[in-house]
Amino acid sequence: AVNEDNYTWRTCSKSDSSGASNSGCESSKESSRSSTPVLDTDRTDRLRDKMRRRTESGDHWFSLEFFPPRTASGAVNLISRFDRMGSGGPLFIDVTWHPAGDPGSDKETSSMMIASTAVNYCGLESILHLTCCNQTKEKITGYLSKAKRLGLKNIMALRGDPMGADWEEEEAGFNYATDLVKHIRCEFDDYFDICVAGYPTGHPEAESYDEDLRHLKEKVDAGADFIITQLFFRADTFLKFVRDCRAIGITCPILPGIFPIQGYQSLRQLVKLSKLEVPEEIMQVIEPIKDNDAAIRNYGIEQAVGMCRVLLESGEVPGLHFYTLNREVATMEVLRQLGLWIEDPRRTLPWAVSAHPKRKVEDVRPIFWASRPKSYIYRTQDWDDFPNGRWGNSSSPAFGELNDYYLFYLKSKSSKDALLKMWGEELTSEQSVYEVFTSYITAQPNVAGHKVMCLPWNDDPLAPETNLLKDELDKVNRRGVLTINSQPSINGKPSSDPIVGWGPPGGYVFQKAYLEFFTSSENVTALLKVLKKYEPRVNYHIVNVHGQNTTNAHDMQPNAVTWGIFPGREIVQPTVVDPVSFLYWKDEAFALWIEQWAKLYEDESPSRMIIKYIHDNYFLVNLVDNDFPLDNCLWQVIDDMFELLDNPPEEQPAEQTAEQPNDEQSDKEQPGK
Amino acid sequence: AVNEDNYTWRTCSKSDSSGASNSGCESSKESSRSSTPVLDTDRTDRLRDKMRRRTESGDHWFSLEFFPPRTASGAVNLISRFDRMGSGGPLFIDVTWHPAGDPGSDKETSSMMIASTAVNYCGLESILHLTCCNQTKEKITGYLSKAKRLGLKNIMALRGDPMGADWEEEEAGFNYATDLVKHIRCEFDDYFDICVAGYPTGHPEAESYDEDLRHLKEKVDAGADFIITQLFFRADTFLKFVRDCRAIGITCPILPGIFPIQGYQSLRQLVKLSKLEVPEEIMQVIEPIKDNDAAIRNYGIEQAVGMCRVLLESGEVPGLHFYTLNREVATMEVLRQLGLWIEDPRRTLPWAVSAHPKRKVEDVRPIFWASRPKSYIYRTQDWDDFPNGRWGNSSSPAFGELNDYYLFYLKSKSSKDALLKMWGEELTSEQSVYEVFTSYITAQPNVAGHKVMCLPWNDDPLAPETNLLKDELDKVNRRGVLTINSQPSINGKPSSDPIVGWGPPGGYVFQKAYLEFFTSSENVTALLKVLKKYEPRVNYHIVNVHGQNTTNAHDMQPNAVTWGIFPGREIVQPTVVDPVSFLYWKDEAFALWIEQWAKLYEDESPSRMIIKYIHDNYFLVNLVDNDFPLDNCLWQVIDDMFELLDNPPEEQPAEQTAEQPNDEQSDKEQPGK
Repeated sequence: AVNEDNYTWRTCSKSDSSGASNSGCESSKESSRSSTPVLDTDRTDRLRDKMRRRTESGDHWFSLEFFPPRTASGAVNLISRFDRMGSGGPLFIDVTWHPAGDPGSDKETSSMMIASTAVNYCGLESILHLTCCNQTKEKITGYLSKAKRLGLKNIMALRGDPMGADWEEEEAGFNYATDLVKHIRCEFDDYFDICVAGYPTGHPEAESYDEDLRHLKEKVDAGADFIITQLFFRADTFLKFVRDCRAIGITCPILPGIFPIQGYQSLRQLVKLSKLEVPEEIMQVIEPIKDNDAAIRNYGIEQAVGMCRVLLESGEVPGLHFYTLNREVATMEVLRQLGLWIEDPRRTLPWAVSAHPKRKVEDVRPIFWASRPKSYIYRTQDWDDFPNGRWGNSSSPAFGELNDYYLFYLKSKSSKDALLKMWGEELTSEQSVYEVFTSYITAQPNVAGHKVMCLPWNDDPLAPETNLLKDELDKVNRRGVLTINSQPSINGKPSSDPIVGWGPPGGYVFQKAYLEFFTSSENVTALLKVLKKYEPRVNYHIVNVHGQNTTNAHDMQPNAVTWGIFPGREIVQPTVVDPVSFLYWKDEAFALWIEQWAKLYEDESPSRMIIKYIHDNYFLVNLVDNDFPLDNCLWQVIDDMFELLDNPPEEQPAEQTAEQPNDEQSDKEQPGK
Repeated sequence: AVNEDNYTWRTCSKSDSSGASNSGCESSKESSRSSTPVLDTDRTDRLRDKMRRRTESGDHWFSLEFFPPRTASGAVNLISRFDRMGSGGPLFIDVTWHPAGDPGSDKETSSMMIASTAVNYCGLESILHLTCCNQTKEKITGYLSKAKRLGLKNIMALRGDPMGADWEEEEAGFNYATDLVKHIRCEFDDYFDICVAGYPTGHPEAESYDEDLRHLKEKVDAGADFIITQLFFRADTFLKFVRDCRAIGITCPILPGIFPIQGYQSLRQLVKLSKLEVPEEIMQVIEPIKDNDAAIRNYGIEQAVGMCRVLLESGEVPGLHFYTLNREVATMEVLRQLGLWIEDPRRTLPWAVSAHPKRKVEDVRPIFWASRPKSYIYRTQDWDDFPNGRWGNSSSPAFGELNDYYLFYLKSKSSKDALLKMWGEELTSEQSVYEVFTSYITAQPNVAGHKVMCLPWNDDPLAPETNLLKDELDKVNRRGVLTINSQPSINGKPSSDPIVGWGPPGGYVFQKAYLEFFTSSENVTALLKVLKKYEPRVNYHIVNVHGQNTTNAHDMQPNAVTWGIFPGREIVQPTVVDPVSFLYWKDEAFALWIEQWAKLYEDESPSRMIIKYIHDNYFLVNLVDNDFPLDNCLWQVIDDMFELLDNPPEEQPAEQTAEQPNDEQSDKEQPGK
């Protein structure tokens, strides 16, 4: 374990000018009164503490290294990969620093932005690499301040390769990673967890293996929390290195860098760059099959699995660090064979948690963004406080405007071509839109034979939970009740339930049935009549793009629709239907018709006009059935609406028939803007 | 309705030196984000808004006037009366100002303290009377500041009777109630709701009825919110008065002051003081029966009911104000006959709410003080924030010390003699203590033939809810498991359930089973062995008077044991078992053995030594069964403990038998003090 008294940076005389470290401590103290009961330890621990806890429990874990992509679409792909590989449960991921690629910029492909996206939008504990060679202190401090602002909490401190051959030591500059470690501790005190690199066969530029070990000791003494090694090909290489480190007093965790061989060329290139020698026994296997990619990959997996087993069995290795080369298959296969890839279907909360430190207490969100968690995180990124325990009477939640629909992390994973195939090259009527929804719900091909894998409001196929409602959803979408969000009622299922469960084991989860859909104003007129029969059992909010709004929400209060009861904990209620934020969601939900769907078609084209018509005239409706112990009545509500439309009561001449829902309340209930 | 534009005080040029009004507004804004979902309107409305809401709904209501008592035991009685009469649902009570009785002091009998107790400890909306005659502005401002600090929000502004016959108008002083109203508005802006007195037959000192009406108009124009009238004997008197008020532009609510005649002497005295004439038709009935108290009271009730019916049917009377003379019977009977006395068995929360403005968001409390809510309010009176939505990880809740056991509002309602009869004139063994507990639980007389109506930890007979557990409680108390608090498990009963329900209708309430008791260290040793079988289903905390503490609470987190789900609301979880505040409760729970029980006996007497022995050696235990949907297992836990004690496994010589519960954690978990 790390002995903090050894940290030489603690004697650093420069006081912490930024106040960085203190604010970190204080904020965790401030929020202690109301921290998230379910996730306390996981969300409030810093990486080195998580690592220690896992290590002490004898649990093996893994981490994954990625490099920043070159293109925006590469970034979209990498972020999807983060989501997929994140589901296997890495302790952290790290993102390399590309000095030539404007690594600290706001470009969607920069090291900084990729690491930030991993933390903020994918909820992954992340380490940002940082190289100091040829950089001024001001520049480095700027990078670190920006990283901190973005919610990054861990830095891999590296020297980096000198830019030119004429590199010489500068008196006041950064000559070694040690200087960077000291600088981070001086300027940011204990805010960051710091990782440094270890070279099991010695750094290629070091005078000797022993000299290199002494440098490593200096880095650790300067304040590094743990070590990740360069790749190696024999378990013994690493185990000897660890013994040598321990012998000279390096006590912190040392993580082996694992490189599953994935191809002949990539191996040669990497070896050249890192000046490593590939052992003879490996070359002998590979050379004969060098043109057979599959064979090499299979060998790479086998070789990595064998080596990892030796490492884990040695008792010296708490976790394994993988150089993924931004690929999934080989690393995932190695992890699966080792039994370390654990896709836990249980969720800590019903929605995707962000790893930004200021969101660590967050445990309540409106249900509306259930399928667009990244958008929710984006629109609330400027909040100083996040609701926990209770959403509260959010009279004016400051949701960010969502103008930048092309924001790379909100982009659809599908191309324009793929979207047109799914959503129709040419729309002929509102009915053809209904069919797209129905195809999505039923997972049946559309008229053109393409499966509809996503909708503007859902970039992924139907959630397993929503599948429980499939038949009813199918029926109502066919008739123009265009559902975009729903959940069944749950009356106390175990928290370990594979479909609807979340939170720690031994608890019980509950839900109120929820249904959200677009539908025509004719339908809404009938619906409002029907809803009178369901007072006060059903709460509703009905709004059109112009903000014409009707609701029976009591005092505009939020309604908790998901909650959990756990042993020895307070109640957790992670999702609410909030009348106020619904009007902000409304802006986004309607805009997606235009931005994601209508704009696929030519200006003035009939297809575009149909979507535009729906956007301008349909209402967005949400319904909650408060009586969660009874059978969900929301389908009956919709049936009653269809029944009323199919068999309207004979009109009485004296009575005025409302063409539109009542808009008496619309002024009062629109968010001020 | 009140037209605020008419308030002349709004043009008052003096700025608000105390900032009083603003802080009132701000605090309600600050807390709006997390206000109590169940009680929003009731708890956040000010009196004039509540009055308007009730009036607009066509609902009739009543209010009750009391005067401060002369003695401390009179105060204890009056506070019990507040609790009893509060259960009938008055919109407010008011407490008269006795200039001769040091009315603004901290004495338990002062007007100020009685009104404060009504607000803080009895949860009643209260009006404090205040007379200004012969007072300096500084003195009056001092009274008002103190009232505000104590949580009082309403003032009845009166001139009061001049002290001597030589009273003359002072230029800069308070000559009329109007001056006081203006002063309150100047100094405290809109913080207080202000009530003024109306005289249906004219003020005795006024030049004329019309002149008096003009004075009343001035008081209202100066900023009064509503009017309560002097008593009268004929409905017509009041109704004419209201018509005359409306005619000169008085638009605020006018509440009739109702005086049920309760006795011949009290009527004569009151009439003399108020210079009223008793109508001939009343005197004719009363004179012949003037020595028959019961007959007069019956007549008084009949007369008041008849007059109130006329008033209510007139449509001019939103509510009735009763001059109770600090008596219960007549007023309650009138209210019952009018159908206005509504004892609603449903509670807004499972515990007694305080009406102090700073507690209006409070909706979570530890379960420990369930039978001692006034003590809890007292010990947390200095808190600036009250937990709502979630108790949170209260690492250091600053509970006030409870040194003043003689505090009048925490005093037992029973005398020392009565307590000795119930709890035993002479105790002979621990067993005789067990029998007192058993008698209390079963409501059967003790060996001396007296019913045990209270215990040091419960000043009232067993709650209906606890009665559900009576048989089991009886069994375990006989064997020295001395229960002081418990609740059954509830898995979703309607919120309208007469025994366990609370909160608004249409909801569902839940509970985890809870049991709290004192027991010997021998029992605790066995209990701890038994509890291993119930992990993680049962959470426990076990502590003795010295703070030796054992718990399996996860991270010392609170455990929600009561919660409710309501239509269109967030989850409400009003009671928790909090490991930290348990250690503060422990101090109180153990001290009650000595302060309330042991001290009944002579120093060094055997009875006192027995209680002292229990105090010094027993442990206080609480148990929570987390599996609320299953049958409560806590009785099985106790049975298992008895089984283990009755049939101990054969001791193995090598094994060390623990004499005491494990105290490894005691240092860590004791609150710092």
